[in-house]
Amino acid sequence: MNLELRDEIFNQAKKWILEAGGAIRERIDDPLTIDTKSNPKDLVTHMDKETEQFFVRKIKSEYPEHLLLSEEGFGDNLQSLDGIVWIVDPIDGTMNFVQQKRNFAISIGIYHQGIGEMGLIYNVMDDNLYSAKRGEGAYKDNKQLPQLKEQVKLDESLLGLNHFWLLENRLVEEQIMQKLVREVRGTRTYGSAALEFAYVAEGIMDGYLTMSLAPWDVAAGIVIVNEVGGVTTNIMGGDVNMLEKNSILTCHPAIQKSIINDFIKKGKK
Amino acid sequence: MNLELRDEIFNQAKKWILEAGGAIRERIDDPLTIDTKSNPKDLVTHMDKETEQFFVRKIKSEYPEHLLLSEEGFGDNLQSLDGIVWIVDPIDGTMNFVQQKRNFAISIGIYHQGIGEMGLIYNVMDDNLYSAKRGEGAYKDNKQLPQLKEQVKLDESLLGLNHFWLLENRLVEEQIMQKLVREVRGTRTYGSAALEFAYVAEGIMDGYLTMSLAPWDVAAGIVIVNEVGGVTTNIMGGDVNMLEKNSILTCHPAIQKSIINDFIKKGKK
Repeated sequence: MNLELRDEIFNQAKKWILEAGGAIRERIDDPLTIDTKSNPKDLVTHMDKETEQFFVRKIKSEYPEHLLLSEEGFGDNLQSLDGIVWIVDPIDGTMNFVQQKRNFAISIGIYHQGIGEMGLIYNVMDDNLYSAKRGEGAYKDNKQLPQLKEQVKLDESLLGLNHFWLLENRLVEEQIMQKLVREVRGTRTYGSAALEFAYVAEGIMDGYLTMSLAPWDVAAGIVIVNEVGGVTTNIMGGDVNMLEKNSILTCHPAIQKSIINDFIKKGKK
Repeated sequence: MNLELRDEIFNQAKKWILEAGGAIRERIDDPLTIDTKSNPKDLVTHMDKETEQFFVRKIKSEYPEHLLLSEEGFGDNLQSLDGIVWIVDPIDGTMNFVQQKRNFAISIGIYHQGIGEMGLIYNVMDDNLYSAKRGEGAYKDNKQLPQLKEQVKLDESLLGLNHFWLLENRLVEEQIMQKLVREVRGTRTYGSAALEFAYVAEGIMDGYLTMSLAPWDVAAGIVIVNEVGGVTTNIMGGDVNMLEKNSILTCHPAIQKSIINDFIKKGKK
């Protein structure tokens, strides 16, 4: 992708994400219309939908040739990642948005011919923007994030992990995941995939292991983590498919092999 | 306790906790001396010790007749809660302090004849002070926290829960706790007991269930949660013993009975 064009798109995306986040902040105490989607824990509010529609309007008017893959269904129905594709989660961490009124993010990944060129994750209530352009480093607001520390041992690492990994599930024997919990130094659960990617990029978690996420949950995070030397694959170590759901490990490269080979692959169903 | 004396002690405690937190913030990027205590995951740094010593000096000089129960061993060796006792955790969430340089707190509970009179929890890096005096409401900084919402259903609640509840443990059958995770709307793990109590008081979590905590982890939180209408007991529903370790449930009263009777007691070993 032409770097001048990329800078222009990045600046637009940044302007829009800050604007959309500002609108959510202003209305954070307004009453919410809450619905459920695939299951009672899968929440959506009118703010998710309105925020997505804001991005659809902006993108379609400014870049009519770009495509849009997004959570609430106002985007395009994509069969491939040809061209320039915006992958948008208007509110990542909707449960936190509803119950906590904080700890949620807007996530935008911009891909060109399937390659992640830009990622933006906006922690709306903390007013922190994590961003990256491929090959140009990652930033938290205007400050460049350092490369991940040189070495990390698994037994000294802090791992982001949803509790469902420790229940009977269709991916991995839960006993082996329980062993992983005993092996690492600590585990955390924050309830927003985008923010957990951002925390891995910041180096405040050494990895984040997550089940069955949609492209909009991870598209931005993958680009940002990559720019500080982190690695992201599906839980078997293969490529992430940006057109379907994936179970994903994003982490410091020093602990990737062990988590995949000594735990996930051994417990694979 | 005489209210005038209580106000005076509260104002001192507030001044000292802000001062100690400010000193930690100033030195947050300094190299740390890290040791382990009871096990490799039980960390302590020179900052925990120095911060505790700061409180010991202040309390012993200003209130020589008060007693001090604290994490790192510079306090008194108490056999009872007679008199006025300061229960201090200089850094609650030491693992977060070490690995994240945020998401930790200083916690101070002040008890008189065994009754929690005051609680202060200072989220050092966010510069938020949660505080309460018995019978006078709870505050986040200068803003009074509202009473917890009128009703909460278990299947719509967000529960703070360490992952170890889902592994084989000596307290409760892990299968029953796995059922609890499926029952509630969501689970979170933040890594600081004091802050998780504060989040329950703020209403951004509906409960927090925690294994084998020391008095200094919970002394302040119990007072603060109580002031917004929350309840705290040991996991069998009995009184918390402030002279030993307790496994504790602090929560909205509407979900307390169900968590204890339908889950913990059924899985009790």
